Amino acid sequence: MKILVIGAAGMIGRKLVKRILADEAVGGRQVTAMTLADVVTPSAPASAIPIDTVAADLSHAGVAESLVAGRPDLIFHLAAIVSGEAEADFDKGYAINLDGTRYLFEAVRQAHLVDGYTPRLVFTSSIAVFGAPFPAEIGDEFHLTPLTSYGTQKAIGELLLADYSRRGFLDGVGIRLPTIAIRPGKPNKAASGFFSGIVREPLVGVEAMLPVADTVRHWFASPRAAVGFLLHAATIDTAPLGARRSLTMPGVAATVAEEIEALRRAAGDRAVALIRREPDETIARIVAGWPQAFAADRAVALGFTADKDFDEIVSIHIADELG
Amino acid sequence: MKILVIGAAGMIGRKLVKRILADEAVGGRQVTAMTLADVVTPSAPASAIPIDTVAADLSHAGVAESLVAGRPDLIFHLAAIVSGEAEADFDKGYAINLDGTRYLFEAVRQAHLVDGYTPRLVFTSSIAVFGAPFPAEIGDEFHLTPLTSYGTQKAIGELLLADYSRRGFLDGVGIRLPTIAIRPGKPNKAASGFFSGIVREPLVGVEAMLPVADTVRHWFASPRAAVGFLLHAATIDTAPLGARRSLTMPGVAATVAEEIEALRRAAGDRAVALIRREPDETIARIVAGWPQAFAADRAVALGFTADKDFDEIVSIHIADELG
Repeated sequence: MKILVIGAAGMIGRKLVKRILADEAVGGRQVTAMTLADVVTPSAPASAIPIDTVAADLSHAGVAESLVAGRPDLIFHLAAIVSGEAEADFDKGYAINLDGTRYLFEAVRQAHLVDGYTPRLVFTSSIAVFGAPFPAEIGDEFHLTPLTSYGTQKAIGELLLADYSRRGFLDGVGIRLPTIAIRPGKPNKAASGFFSGIVREPLVGVEAMLPVADTVRHWFASPRAAVGFLLHAATIDTAPLGARRSLTMPGVAATVAEEIEALRRAAGDRAVALIRREPDETIARIVAGWPQAFAADRAVALGFTADKDFDEIVSIHIADELG
Repeated sequence: MKILVIGAAGMIGRKLVKRILADEAVGGRQVTAMTLADVVTPSAPASAIPIDTVAADLSHAGVAESLVAGRPDLIFHLAAIVSGEAEADFDKGYAINLDGTRYLFEAVRQAHLVDGYTPRLVFTSSIAVFGAPFPAEIGDEFHLTPLTSYGTQKAIGELLLADYSRRGFLDGVGIRLPTIAIRPGKPNKAASGFFSGIVREPLVGVEAMLPVADTVRHWFASPRAAVGFLLHAATIDTAPLGARRSLTMPGVAATVAEEIEALRRAAGDRAVALIRREPDETIARIVAGWPQAFAADRAVALGFTADKDFDEIVSIHIADELG
């Protein structure tokens, strides 16, 4: 099978590609070729499988058409302007996250109208499609009321994915990713950054800032679990989904206090002592509007598997990033 | 205040305009000018209030800009390709119902960026944003899972309305209209047509076809109630809406049997005898996917008022259409 990964240079994209190349198959089907696309040309890992790398901005006319010209059997659409940037740059967010996604679906539809092409298309959505107020645990039938332009664009992507699937132009699965922890790399300015930072930095002896109360609770998945979700979405039977093509992924609901205790179990009091409490009302207010926990019953019934607990999330980070 | 009505030539649009011209005010504010727009030039009723009539296809670039150039204080966006046509013509439905709506919001935003213009914008959505399976009574927090391209486009319009409102570019209220009954005029090919037809035709001595079982239950509002919803949406304080700008309108849940009994009370057995049962499996299957009843608590709390019962719906038709 031929696979196209759009957004292949991102953190999850790189891990997904690495895993596919290691397995050389997805769902038991041999991978024969891969195309890796991103706004900057992704680097191609060494592999026996032929890999094309492409610099592609989905918001430009014709780009999506050229990406599907080779008729990939499986498309992962991970590309997005992230939450903070989509909020700061209204036009750019809509251009990439809404128009880009629609151009992609439309390019698939045009190919479908020519020769019946109907790829599996895995679309990464986000729990940012939800906005407060919500119940303590958000069920699978709760409405989408995003409080950011990013969340709005993802919710619209879900609606388009469902309609294009219902009409038979593509075979879509949308997955609403939890907040990814522990996100590897440098600290960034995302409001959610501290959730990873308070574990990642102390594990390598560096101080980390905690801007919110220990009681703050949120919904997490490790990068390894996220890659597992993507690959499972690529291979499940979509008949049971009916017209409801997007699924809240299972995750780990953990408070900051529980994160800290998991860090203590993994690296001791010396690591925990590197967390510096520095309350930030702006971040606290943003985070207060985020979901805390979900009942992801549909996804669980369909075989999507979350990390066991926050200890596992910490140990995955240690194994995958720190050797 | 200056008012723009887009979709002014449609059944609801015409009734809305007639009511505004009769009242000469909306929410206690004097109406000083009206612009009536539709794909075909709407006719302007005789009135002391200056009326502009415009042929405008929102899906064409620049059209929305010219409509908001006069900075209307209040915009009613009623224009849409209806359900059946949006399903039959995928491109046309998306062009008018999605692109047209987005062009309008974007034209308002561009005006806002120039001079702070922030009109009240009333957007007509539809219960078609909901798709089976659902509970017997659909609450205000139930997710939107449309089963038509029309419903998808309306749901996307709701998301855009919320985001543009949240960002302060416009002051939006979306109202999800029930199925309108009794729809005046000739029978049409809409799958929902019989709900009106089995009352409208017998009232004037004409036979009407009933393609579904008497037990089928659906959600209705009279044209007069729909106009009331639009005017109330134009005047309510939007602060209590928060970021959740679209509301399911209250309605009357009635079975076909209840409709028939209301007809009998209004016009006797002779009228009822004109209903010819002619089961149609295609229509029965389509209607089975439609909502039956809602708990429209938010809208009721905000003062939106439904018809009392189906008897009232019948008597409104008699009063407004048959004199």
